[in-house]
Amino acid sequence: MTYRIEHDTMGEVKVPAEKYWGAQTERSHENFKIGAEGSMPKEIIAAFAYLKKAAAYTNTDAGVLPQEKRDLIAQVCDEILDGKLAGEFPLVIWQTGSGTQSNMNVNEVIANRAHVIQGNQLGEGKTFIHPNDDVNKSQSSNDTYPTAMHIAAYKLLLETTIPGVEKLRDTLKAKSEQFKSVVKIGRTHLMDATPLTLGQEFSGYVSQLDHGLKALRNTLDHLSELALGGTAVGTGINTPKGYAVNVAKYIAQFTGLPFRTAENKFEALAAHDAMVESHGALKQLAVSLMKIANDVRMLASGPRSGIGELLIPENEPGSSIMPGKVNPTQCEALTMVAAQVMGNDVAITIGGATGHYELNVFKPLIAANFLQSARLLGDACVSFNDHCAVGIEPNYEGIKKHVENSLMLVTALNPYIGYENAAKIAKKAHKENKSLREAALALNLLTNEQFDQWVRPEDMIGGLK
Amino acid sequence: MTYRIEHDTMGEVKVPAEKYWGAQTERSHENFKIGAEGSMPKEIIAAFAYLKKAAAYTNTDAGVLPQEKRDLIAQVCDEILDGKLAGEFPLVIWQTGSGTQSNMNVNEVIANRAHVIQGNQLGEGKTFIHPNDDVNKSQSSNDTYPTAMHIAAYKLLLETTIPGVEKLRDTLKAKSEQFKSVVKIGRTHLMDATPLTLGQEFSGYVSQLDHGLKALRNTLDHLSELALGGTAVGTGINTPKGYAVNVAKYIAQFTGLPFRTAENKFEALAAHDAMVESHGALKQLAVSLMKIANDVRMLASGPRSGIGELLIPENEPGSSIMPGKVNPTQCEALTMVAAQVMGNDVAITIGGATGHYELNVFKPLIAANFLQSARLLGDACVSFNDHCAVGIEPNYEGIKKHVENSLMLVTALNPYIGYENAAKIAKKAHKENKSLREAALALNLLTNEQFDQWVRPEDMIGGLK
Amino acid sequence: MTYRIEHDTMGEVKVPAEKYWGAQTERSHENFKIGAEGSMPKEIIAAFAYLKKAAAYTNTDAGVLPQEKRDLIAQVCDEILDGKLAGEFPLVIWQTGSGTQSNMNVNEVIANRAHVIQGNQLGEGKTFIHPNDDVNKSQSSNDTYPTAMHIAAYKLLLETTIPGVEKLRDTLKAKSEQFKSVVKIGRTHLMDATPLTLGQEFSGYVSQLDHGLKALRNTLDHLSELALGGTAVGTGINTPKGYAVNVAKYIAQFTGLPFRTAENKFEALAAHDAMVESHGALKQLAVSLMKIANDVRMLASGPRSGIGELLIPENEPGSSIMPGKVNPTQCEALTMVAAQVMGNDVAITIGGATGHYELNVFKPLIAANFLQSARLLGDACVSFNDHCAVGIEPNYEGIKKHVENSLMLVTALNPYIGYENAAKIAKKAHKENKSLREAALALNLLTNEQFDQWVRPEDMIGGLK
Amino acid sequence: MTYRIEHDTMGEVKVPAEKYWGAQTERSHENFKIGAEGSMPKEIIAAFAYLKKAAAYTNTDAGVLPQEKRDLIAQVCDEILDGKLAGEFPLVIWQTGSGTQSNMNVNEVIANRAHVIQGNQLGEGKTFIHPNDDVNKSQSSNDTYPTAMHIAAYKLLLETTIPGVEKLRDTLKAKSEQFKSVVKIGRTHLMDATPLTLGQEFSGYVSQLDHGLKALRNTLDHLSELALGGTAVGTGINTPKGYAVNVAKYIAQFTGLPFRTAENKFEALAAHDAMVESHGALKQLAVSLMKIANDVRMLASGPRSGIGELLIPENEPGSSIMPGKVNPTQCEALTMVAAQVMGNDVAITIGGATGHYELNVFKPLIAANFLQSARLLGDACVSFNDHCAVGIEPNYEGIKKHVENSLMLVTALNPYIGYENAAKIAKKAHKENKSLREAALALNLLTNEQFDQWVRPEDMIGGLK
Repeated sequence: MTYRIEHDTMGEVKVPAEKYWGAQTERSHENFKIGAEGSMPKEIIAAFAYLKKAAAYTNTDAGVLPQEKRDLIAQVCDEILDGKLAGEFPLVIWQTGSGTQSNMNVNEVIANRAHVIQGNQLGEGKTFIHPNDDVNKSQSSNDTYPTAMHIAAYKLLLETTIPGVEKLRDTLKAKSEQFKSVVKIGRTHLMDATPLTLGQEFSGYVSQLDHGLKALRNTLDHLSELALGGTAVGTGINTPKGYAVNVAKYIAQFTGLPFRTAENKFEALAAHDAMVESHGALKQLAVSLMKIANDVRMLASGPRSGIGELLIPENEPGSSIMPGKVNPTQCEALTMVAAQVMGNDVAITIGGATGHYELNVFKPLIAANFLQSARLLGDACVSFNDHCAVGIEPNYEGIKKHVENSLMLVTALNPYIGYENAAKIAKKAHKENKSLREAALALNLLTNEQFDQWVRPEDMIGGLK
Repeated sequence: MTYRIEHDTMGEVKVPAEKYWGAQTERSHENFKIGAEGSMPKEIIAAFAYLKKAAAYTNTDAGVLPQEKRDLIAQVCDEILDGKLAGEFPLVIWQTGSGTQSNMNVNEVIANRAHVIQGNQLGEGKTFIHPNDDVNKSQSSNDTYPTAMHIAAYKLLLETTIPGVEKLRDTLKAKSEQFKSVVKIGRTHLMDATPLTLGQEFSGYVSQLDHGLKALRNTLDHLSELALGGTAVGTGINTPKGYAVNVAKYIAQFTGLPFRTAENKFEALAAHDAMVESHGALKQLAVSLMKIANDVRMLASGPRSGIGELLIPENEPGSSIMPGKVNPTQCEALTMVAAQVMGNDVAITIGGATGHYELNVFKPLIAANFLQSARLLGDACVSFNDHCAVGIEPNYEGIKKHVENSLMLVTALNPYIGYENAAKIAKKAHKENKSLREAALALNLLTNEQFDQWVRPEDMIGGLK
Repeated sequence: MTYRIEHDTMGEVKVPAEKYWGAQTERSHENFKIGAEGSMPKEIIAAFAYLKKAAAYTNTDAGVLPQEKRDLIAQVCDEILDGKLAGEFPLVIWQTGSGTQSNMNVNEVIANRAHVIQGNQLGEGKTFIHPNDDVNKSQSSNDTYPTAMHIAAYKLLLETTIPGVEKLRDTLKAKSEQFKSVVKIGRTHLMDATPLTLGQEFSGYVSQLDHGLKALRNTLDHLSELALGGTAVGTGINTPKGYAVNVAKYIAQFTGLPFRTAENKFEALAAHDAMVESHGALKQLAVSLMKIANDVRMLASGPRSGIGELLIPENEPGSSIMPGKVNPTQCEALTMVAAQVMGNDVAITIGGATGHYELNVFKPLIAANFLQSARLLGDACVSFNDHCAVGIEPNYEGIKKHVENSLMLVTALNPYIGYENAAKIAKKAHKENKSLREAALALNLLTNEQFDQWVRPEDMIGGLK
Repeated sequence: MTYRIEHDTMGEVKVPAEKYWGAQTERSHENFKIGAEGSMPKEIIAAFAYLKKAAAYTNTDAGVLPQEKRDLIAQVCDEILDGKLAGEFPLVIWQTGSGTQSNMNVNEVIANRAHVIQGNQLGEGKTFIHPNDDVNKSQSSNDTYPTAMHIAAYKLLLETTIPGVEKLRDTLKAKSEQFKSVVKIGRTHLMDATPLTLGQEFSGYVSQLDHGLKALRNTLDHLSELALGGTAVGTGINTPKGYAVNVAKYIAQFTGLPFRTAENKFEALAAHDAMVESHGALKQLAVSLMKIANDVRMLASGPRSGIGELLIPENEPGSSIMPGKVNPTQCEALTMVAAQVMGNDVAITIGGATGHYELNVFKPLIAANFLQSARLLGDACVSFNDHCAVGIEPNYEGIKKHVENSLMLVTALNPYIGYENAAKIAKKAHKENKSLREAALALNLLTNEQFDQWVRPEDMIGGLK
């Protein structure tokens, strides 16, 4: 590999000759060899491109940056957003906790790329755009990185997580309606209970996801607050008048999302409660999805020695040794994702709680865990939806057998003969392996006609109407 | 101890002679000797009293319970709410996961206590009120226990948690205004940074708590949904027409809180996402409070060899061996509470995610952890407020010394001489243990007058205006 | 209530007249009204009694405490251990994070109780024993509280946790042997798989608990290290020569447990990695128990519409609305305990990670969570053992039906006809609802005799021999 | 892209023409588009190569696999281990929870690559090696994947984690010795306390890491147990006699690590307590490292307005806006890693606890979180060591100033004048901003000579000797 010499305030650094990054990026590259290279989420890099462009526009409007510089900066930002500069962001999550080095990575790439766009050779001559004085003008890593966190998080939630969950929710809703007349046995404590319809069972899942989506949307307002304009410690030192409000407007314009400047910049740098809050809602969705996926795989268990009330798509051979085996693999992927989100929540909680004074320095950790959760949840809901939920069908035979056997239909007798007499019937039937009717008649607690009239599964599912 | 004989559908059970509870309570008492006796939260018992009374009223309105029974049931419920029957609820959290046995505990106590109110001897003769057929009429443990969870949680949040956090928030707000002109050094990465005012620093805490309170209030709507009326599996079997809506109205009336019937009862029994959601907001508050309390104790550290910028009340001798030592004890209690809430959140997450089919059977676990968090947070905020926050004062001497020393005032020079020249000044001052002014002049980067004009801490704190 | 006046280095304090505690206890009592009164674990108080007695003996041996004082201190310590002074320790977990106030609570109670033992009136005259200069001699809260943590934790593990887990382990081992010939269907991914014996299935549970017990015992060595002798910051200031080693010997003697002085006292005060380590093993046991209890309740599910391969004891009526219902309540209690331990682990992790400089000030939090986990696990294992595990029996009918139906017996054909041909048989049988034999013959892949010879469930369970 | 047609028992699948993987891999590739492609850890793939080669050797020894097939399989395994087939393993963590599809990915790649090695065209003709019948012979995903987990985990711990932690431990040990005479103020509750040496402070860190390493090594024995030989459900169906023991020997030989066959295969498939146990020790190390890195950055805080007792290397410009700022960036990376490991521990706990019947299906989740933690901890320790710890030096000036100021030297007077008198001195000095000596003399509690004799910081640090 060939190198060129770059410098920063600490001196000279050898940088790979063909890379746009500069001295500070390379220092970080060398000093933080922790885990896989380039682990800083690409969503963060893209968010930086939006905000650097917005800052340039705002600076020019405020008269502190020439229009020519603004346009060059904006041009490189657009290239980043178009994915043309992938490969220029080699830094890892596990760097300085303010994300300063990734902010400088973006600053340096913009300055050097602009230099080349202007027709110069990379590494030759002084760049027209200075990474700190121009690209980073009116900014600090301390306000850019948290701004990038909010942009990246909000965008991913809107583009991936929410649509993914909604897609699954809509399928489950359709299934709930499709299955509304399928009477089946209920189970509480995993034990046989009074009946309900399969549609009702699915409606619970829909309600969980509806509540989860509402909870997630409730967090978006906090997430729409941007730290930008706070600069070093929240006071906005070195920003022109009106900067904070205006730069948020540009970001809103460029992203098409309702960002606004944070009312309190001190919180916005020193704490990431908005991320904690929003990830709390992701964790709630993970809790719901764990329940739903567990139910589906338990209800679909079998094919011959399980519960066997649902049929799910057979997507791939399930076993490398047991021929013909089919497994609820999408449920498994979804529950693993749910467990991951629950773990990520703890990492974010600890990171969020451990800020000191004017700055929280667990920023990349929080960002990376949040973005992983948001993407995995969205992707896994789509995968589960497309390869499992849409194909779920009732196993009518299994459902019928179970509901007919159930001793808990006896519950319908409570109002007529009392809980204790009803218990006698159920116990006798269970002990002597009889039907409820047989046991009831043997105990002389009601007549055959009364049994017909009172014990009707189809009447036991509509108490709510 | 003397005993009397009680029975249930499984047979006879010896019960302490003077206790109102019956056979099923005693079975649980014997079968679950796990941890300290009586650990089922008292808030849950009180919530049961509200809902049993409401159910009796609703049943009477619907014509399925005689008024005389309603009034007897209501009378005992009021006694429970007045604390007259403490000692009658010996069961533990670690029982059946539906809380059935605590539901039966309440049912049995009401039936037997009513028996005595009617002038009978406890244990003699058949009770006029039947625990299942009357007290539990139109109910199941599966809908009463989650209803009690929501009542207890909502009430505690409103009566203890939110007022406690608000009290602290208001004190911090007042401090923020009181300290608005106290210019001090900022710190990022724990290192000296540009200045801000102490009031600004405190405003960040206020903003965190404001956001946290908002997030918590956002969760109340989900929590206001009551499962009651779903009975065994969510279908509402054995409930009279209109029951679910009406019983929620009575509960709202008796508690004075805006409860309403859950739209979807299947979710309300099988999942506790509302508790997961709301505790997520408690965890967010814990995250904020951890940050705040850490800052306070670090800023107050000393008295001679720490940061020493805040003075906090001296409440008690701090050491059993080091005479005269005073410690930030309220910060320590608050941060321990915060850590507990973070742990509780994981327990609730796991419990919430592990429901099966029509019922979640981690109900008492979820309830107990939630209520502990809600109470501890409220209490700890009041304790921290009363014994620490209200007495916080600036240590003007320490603050002044630090801000005057700071090398990071150099940041104000960026717009005039550029980041790299400014860095030269800071580095020279640091290395040679000089003042910024000395270093700047020695480097010939500006004049004495320019330094006076450009480097003014009081101008560095208002960039946001 | 009547009061007397007590004083400490900060001045006078009103204390309930009949209580032995003094000024510092009362200050804490007033200043930390967080959660229920007296929540500081009683095991910690008992551990303090051991160590105060041991310190008195060591001090007397070293010539720095008169024998008369030693004997008085020891007498009160024995009273505490006999439970005679319950009610004298009103402080909460949520106090100073060093537990200083509970240390002083013990010091004050010993001093005042000794005063009364000597024939004086409580609150009248100067006490012969001084709380700091005598009871606390050669000690600091900073080394006594962590010593109490280790004593309490080690004792509880040995007396409650390990015997509880072992009891369950032994029952499961006996069941494993009892069930060694019961051939049943295996299930992977919740789906039918090749057979095994019920005894083999249970042997997996035994192996989990054996490994868990071994892991727990591996942590005892670290826990046997005592901080005592480190005093204020680990240097042992104000201790006589030989004190640290000798006081540990006395503690070992009084408790009958192999305690020794910690090699490094700086760690022992500033970190609680021993508690983190040991609770990690408790968490591992919780993980194992969650799996085991889940399996038991799933295998016992039914009675008619579940898996139905195990019969478990029917201990109590399972439902307040569904007559005759019986539920796996012990499994539910055990899994709730497991979830609690998992949550506690996070609280302990956060507390353990957040020590600063020479002292960790999350001590009471760590102690309380650890002791709760240790007690709950031990108790819950005994409860699960006595009321469930000992009564587990195979449901032979259900087991037989399932194993005979299984399509996965086809796996035995792989070595003869290959995986792909075997898959054809299984798929045909599944699709056409046929037996394996029928499908195999219809496909002409083997003869009737070959089927008999190759597909024998009883031969499929011993591949390991 | 061009494709070829591959088939499995479910039918035909289009596969990228130039890739060695087959139908089942491609199905998974299509069905699980969750997160980034190819996220299944490369350490798992390498571990599969070891075990497939070992299985082939064992099968040949047992007479069930021709030597020619063994050698072909082994040749491809070696290519995988040499990294020559990277790019052939496109599957994600979020697939089936048994990892079946990654097992088949390896099987298919080996079969097809062997086909090409034999001189055939990829996709043309029947392969000599069958993915299931040959490569997977005597195996199931259910025993291969957990075997790969243990191989990968054990190897990574030995090659990366333990050496990384040891490297840091050794540096801290050397520092501890280097600093053994540097007397400094102690701090408890963040407040000034009695003195100790900087070497003693560092010795606590060393002791933490020593205990952590010991705890981690304690877990290796459980991790050395291999599931291989259990096949589908733990019974070892379709394995030749002696297989389990022998295949473990080959794995031990090929990896050079002390693997042995698991005593109980039912546990080994159905639970991953060994991973839970071992990651518990990683979490303990994370707890220790969080404490150590926090201390270092707090002690190094400044340069002018912090604690300022340590000097750490200045590795990169710390701020994009504040010129000349240097931050404790390695501490930040290390504490973020610690927080990640704590979060991962919860994910692994949940995954480990949620196995059902004969199989845990959170295997890839557990593996991925474990391996991430193991690598990050090892890498971060090396990074922190090389770029921070080795360069730590005392800031003698700051240390001297603090120790001389300390009021807590008064503790040395307790044995002479009692705790209460000593407190009077400290309080007077604090209140009147005097030295201890001045206050002591003013109170007439001792003479000037006694002060000199009794209050000697250098005598306060050796109580332990």
